[in-house]
Amino acid sequence: MATRFPRIAPRGFLNHGARRAPVNLTTCRLFTPRPRPIHSSRSTPHKTRIPTPRTARVAPVGLLVGGGLVASVLAFFQAHDTGNLPEASITPSADDRDPTIPRFRLSDVRKHGPDSSEPWVIFEDKVYNITDWVEAHPGGDVILRAAGGCIEPYWNIFTIHKAPHVREILDQYIIGFVDVADLGPDGRPVAEAIEDPFENDPVRDPRLITHTIKPRNAEPPNEELDRTFYTPNELFYIRHHMWVPVVEEAKADDFALTVELPDGEVKRYTIGELKAKFPTHKVTAVLQCSGNRRNDMTRHAGKTNGLQWGVGAISNAEWEGVRLSDLLADAGLDTTPAQPDTSSLHAQFTGAEAYSASIPLPKALSPTGDVLLAFKMNGETLPRDHGFPLRAIVPGNVAARSVKWLNKIVISDEEATSQWQRRDYKSFGPNEGPNPDWDKAPSIQEMPVTSAITGVWVGDCIKKVPWMGGDKADNPSSKRRTIDMAATPQKVGFTSKPKTIPCPETTPDNEPIALQGYAYSGGGRKITRVDVSLDGGATWDQAELVDDCSNPATPCHCNRSWGWTRWRYTGTLPVLSLPVSTTTILPPVLQKVGQDCEDGFGRSVSLLGQLPKKQCTTLIVKATDESYNTQPESHKGIYNVRGNLATAWHRVKICPECTRGNGKPGGVTWNTGETYGCGFRKQAEEVREGMKAAASGKGGK
Amino acid sequence: MATRFPRIAPRGFLNHGARRAPVNLTTCRLFTPRPRPIHSSRSTPHKTRIPTPRTARVAPVGLLVGGGLVASVLAFFQAHDTGNLPEASITPSADDRDPTIPRFRLSDVRKHGPDSSEPWVIFEDKVYNITDWVEAHPGGDVILRAAGGCIEPYWNIFTIHKAPHVREILDQYIIGFVDVADLGPDGRPVAEAIEDPFENDPVRDPRLITHTIKPRNAEPPNEELDRTFYTPNELFYIRHHMWVPVVEEAKADDFALTVELPDGEVKRYTIGELKAKFPTHKVTAVLQCSGNRRNDMTRHAGKTNGLQWGVGAISNAEWEGVRLSDLLADAGLDTTPAQPDTSSLHAQFTGAEAYSASIPLPKALSPTGDVLLAFKMNGETLPRDHGFPLRAIVPGNVAARSVKWLNKIVISDEEATSQWQRRDYKSFGPNEGPNPDWDKAPSIQEMPVTSAITGVWVGDCIKKVPWMGGDKADNPSSKRRTIDMAATPQKVGFTSKPKTIPCPETTPDNEPIALQGYAYSGGGRKITRVDVSLDGGATWDQAELVDDCSNPATPCHCNRSWGWTRWRYTGTLPVLSLPVSTTTILPPVLQKVGQDCEDGFGRSVSLLGQLPKKQCTTLIVKATDESYNTQPESHKGIYNVRGNLATAWHRVKICPECTRGNGKPGGVTWNTGETYGCGFRKQAEEVREGMKAAASGKGGK
Repeated sequence: MATRFPRIAPRGFLNHGARRAPVNLTTCRLFTPRPRPIHSSRSTPHKTRIPTPRTARVAPVGLLVGGGLVASVLAFFQAHDTGNLPEASITPSADDRDPTIPRFRLSDVRKHGPDSSEPWVIFEDKVYNITDWVEAHPGGDVILRAAGGCIEPYWNIFTIHKAPHVREILDQYIIGFVDVADLGPDGRPVAEAIEDPFENDPVRDPRLITHTIKPRNAEPPNEELDRTFYTPNELFYIRHHMWVPVVEEAKADDFALTVELPDGEVKRYTIGELKAKFPTHKVTAVLQCSGNRRNDMTRHAGKTNGLQWGVGAISNAEWEGVRLSDLLADAGLDTTPAQPDTSSLHAQFTGAEAYSASIPLPKALSPTGDVLLAFKMNGETLPRDHGFPLRAIVPGNVAARSVKWLNKIVISDEEATSQWQRRDYKSFGPNEGPNPDWDKAPSIQEMPVTSAITGVWVGDCIKKVPWMGGDKADNPSSKRRTIDMAATPQKVGFTSKPKTIPCPETTPDNEPIALQGYAYSGGGRKITRVDVSLDGGATWDQAELVDDCSNPATPCHCNRSWGWTRWRYTGTLPVLSLPVSTTTILPPVLQKVGQDCEDGFGRSVSLLGQLPKKQCTTLIVKATDESYNTQPESHKGIYNVRGNLATAWHRVKICPECTRGNGKPGGVTWNTGETYGCGFRKQAEEVREGMKAAASGKGGK
Repeated sequence: MATRFPRIAPRGFLNHGARRAPVNLTTCRLFTPRPRPIHSSRSTPHKTRIPTPRTARVAPVGLLVGGGLVASVLAFFQAHDTGNLPEASITPSADDRDPTIPRFRLSDVRKHGPDSSEPWVIFEDKVYNITDWVEAHPGGDVILRAAGGCIEPYWNIFTIHKAPHVREILDQYIIGFVDVADLGPDGRPVAEAIEDPFENDPVRDPRLITHTIKPRNAEPPNEELDRTFYTPNELFYIRHHMWVPVVEEAKADDFALTVELPDGEVKRYTIGELKAKFPTHKVTAVLQCSGNRRNDMTRHAGKTNGLQWGVGAISNAEWEGVRLSDLLADAGLDTTPAQPDTSSLHAQFTGAEAYSASIPLPKALSPTGDVLLAFKMNGETLPRDHGFPLRAIVPGNVAARSVKWLNKIVISDEEATSQWQRRDYKSFGPNEGPNPDWDKAPSIQEMPVTSAITGVWVGDCIKKVPWMGGDKADNPSSKRRTIDMAATPQKVGFTSKPKTIPCPETTPDNEPIALQGYAYSGGGRKITRVDVSLDGGATWDQAELVDDCSNPATPCHCNRSWGWTRWRYTGTLPVLSLPVSTTTILPPVLQKVGQDCEDGFGRSVSLLGQLPKKQCTTLIVKATDESYNTQPESHKGIYNVRGNLATAWHRVKICPECTRGNGKPGGVTWNTGETYGCGFRKQAEEVREGMKAAASGKGGK
């Protein structure tokens, strides 16, 4: 029998802590694979997950009750590496698994289903009590779908789970083995078949760099990200927790939104009524994931958990819809600004896939806050991937607040924000374990200032920079690729075969260089300045800020500065005066080649252990907003295991590399593993954990 | 005849650019002592300052007209170090000064008085055309008082000018010599006597650290600064541009405030009317100078111009008055939030000493902006030094906007903000000359996040930390000194004789350490986190945030978080594991002593070139606000010649030092040149330029 997923998930499905009893996160052990005493001290109302004699089947060695069971399981964990249970030794006929560990029948496990106060799951041949984990699960209550049975069929669909850290988390909750009598010939219990809830997901643009397929998480490639002020809809980054709800286009105006006020009164509006009743407004606003540039933090400060976004978990669009404050006033809420009794309230948004998140009510009501209920994006009907038919747009705040497929708003004195939507950086090393301050850290609302380099051109290549007139096709409506890159990887984590490109022209002393990128600050704070360094921070120069809002083709609609600021820089890279590093390690390909090549001037460049004149350098960008806040210099000072808000100066290391001439003379070019432009090769980024698994799929339909 | 200063300066006296034609700052050469071509290209409506034949007396070598004069003066500057004119060679009887330079009679100079379009001044025996400088003068138009005569009598009163950089600025405007016929026996012209306009300044608390006496600029010593949540009025830092206006206390309620609306209509309110007509409100707010911690930037990134504030150009108080928005509504302004036509307007404040500064109108009208017209401070009548009888209070913005002695408000489409109230950091070295971006940089309104260490105790001394119960007298109403410092300098720039203090108790491995300080962010953004490092940033720990607002004795009044957050930290300093520096240079006193001393455990500590186990370490604090903005790691990335917004991580280096026992056994203690606590000696900070001159006076009366 196939378990069927609902098209629209039930209320509270993934509510990220809304209206939930507080969880003592010190017992969650999110990031510690270390075994822990099962009788940890608990201050929460959650029930213990120690099996009682009532549910635990007596194991071969008896008297495993109460403290005795605890001692036995604890001794088991102390004696074994729980991450490497001896799978090969398990056979259905001869149970040579540790006899001191409890066994459970499938019938026992089934009693701990979705409605149980103590949900259990089976993975391989082991049983896990996930009670304490449900609250912390990034995907919310959807994990309960697997309760009472095997979790593997779900993980085969939600491929995001095929990562080592997910297994490490699960291992903390082991309570015993599946009884040998319930194991099949392969040493595993028989799992039920389930339907793929992602089968109706929309088709995506193949240019997107996909981090996970189910749910889909993808970012535009750098060369498309900020080519235009408004990111095209089909390239706007996608960040999903679940499948995309299906709403018939013809019935969109009948889609209902309910509004619950603090006094419990509930009002109901269809989208058609919203459109008819309230004036529509346009707002120009960035959406940015708190994980944007997480991969940058991983590479510069240490391992982080979560999707390893590059610099593209951010996009800019023009949103159109009605004002949330108009709706709330109509629904009966006192929307006079600065009501003392409302300043601590939250507006909780819930989407049709049951994700929810809240914003402080003062932001929702602020006459300059520009919070919208949007049904259009860049002049088109809101795409399914971006919340069709209705999405909250909360300008200046983390995108997690701009809830998609919005069908419910609750004004409440409780915040709807999971601990995943915080940044806490008590732990400054990647292996320091759980942080008791997670739940004390404020939830991420307004974003700090950040910036990124999205394009680098060195040497002759700058003739190809679109905004320098090198390519006439720099036109938002054109799908043509305008940047001649050395390689365009379709999947992150894999290196395409580099094309042979001509050597850039150089002068004896320096090469022309062009950079571009974006800068953004939350809270509506305007970017007032962008600084660029070509020499690792020793000297700086100002970039040109693109005044997109003054361009009649890209007008901005806003009470504050909610959009991003694109910047451009041209200068000269003083190649010969760059410091010579004595510790330069040549790329493997060069070490193998082991031969000299000539640069553009016929100079010989040795590949055997040194590049005597052309050395690596680090390009840096940093931005300043109108409050004169700037970005931190490095990720080390803001390191957090979640990799949230990775806003350090963006550094891109570029190095000279010898190209083989394929019969013609070779030469020197520059490469970077981090960004795009001509003359660059995209390096494999092994650190993007889980990418191999994700890339092995075929993408959404 | 003594020139009399008005008690209340006339309108527009020091208006910091309000309603003034734009000045091309590229010609101001604020910070370059280099000579420049006098015929610089000019895009401003200002008149040239080249003397015309009409005003220039023909010099001994003739034909010094037009370009000929320019060439001659230019040649003069190219041949001489203008900062070191040969004073000794000047005698009234024999004029052996450079004959190629023009001479002017006093009667010529008098024609270029305060009302002239080309004001001139005399300094020593030289004549300067200060036309271009007036706009950039930090003290505003008051400089015109000296026009047409000698500037020295004014500088003798405004002692802030007795600094090398002031002389460097003036030297750029030299146009010739005073004619020998007008010089007295000392080689100088006879100057008029002037009255001291500061004679009615209030008496100040002797604990204040005075940077300049006339005008008074002073900060509280660290140990008093944040001992209490509300800084006592008598210790609140003082930042004046001029003398303190005199208003009779009995007539305070008759003091008039005029309000000018965009349509030109003028309304007039006395303070008595304000009190009678509008409800009073209290607001808890920090005031912070943009130059706070400037000295820190100087020491860590390079020379900066301006008052060399320590960490004390910030204080916190409870302000009481009426809301500016109430007044503006009553005066007839449409105060509905988010009026599109008003969002670009400014509210210009002018004080009785004629300083003026503006804020954006949306801030003035914001229902949560808490902008007050205050007449009380910490429950008392506003002190004269802090704006008696009326002061604008603009919470969250730089204190330059909280105009004292407020007597006029103009709603205008022009900003009233001088270029001094910006931060621009194109120049990353101290000698890079003028910055053409000064006037493009946005004016400082909302402040970025910052923090500082104000107290450090190591070893046995932590028993004396007031908030650790070591001193029962930690009472706001007590004037008793509660911190037993090794030295309490009364003046910055001079080292008091250190007292002999007992060696702190140590353990073989570490010593207890306690730190305290403050953190603050502008725009009402709450401080959510403070991190402390004891080892120069290698590891971090969180400080405890003092929840002053929840203390019934110190309630906070605000719609947003405008006050500071005090923090405390206790830990252990891992003395023996601190890195051993191979380049440690012993303090001179130790090099002279040249003997060993014993630490608290009888261990011998060598003074001859090494301190083998006890090494220097750097304490650091950094803060994070609710937008997750953090402080920049170093001042290098935000360096600006004005030293504005020096918000880098605050670093305090502490070093072990051997104390002589005075007959008894000596031992090891720790010192720092930067902050207070027991066991520390305040080092002279030579970099505080101008301090010697200021300290040679006797302080205000």
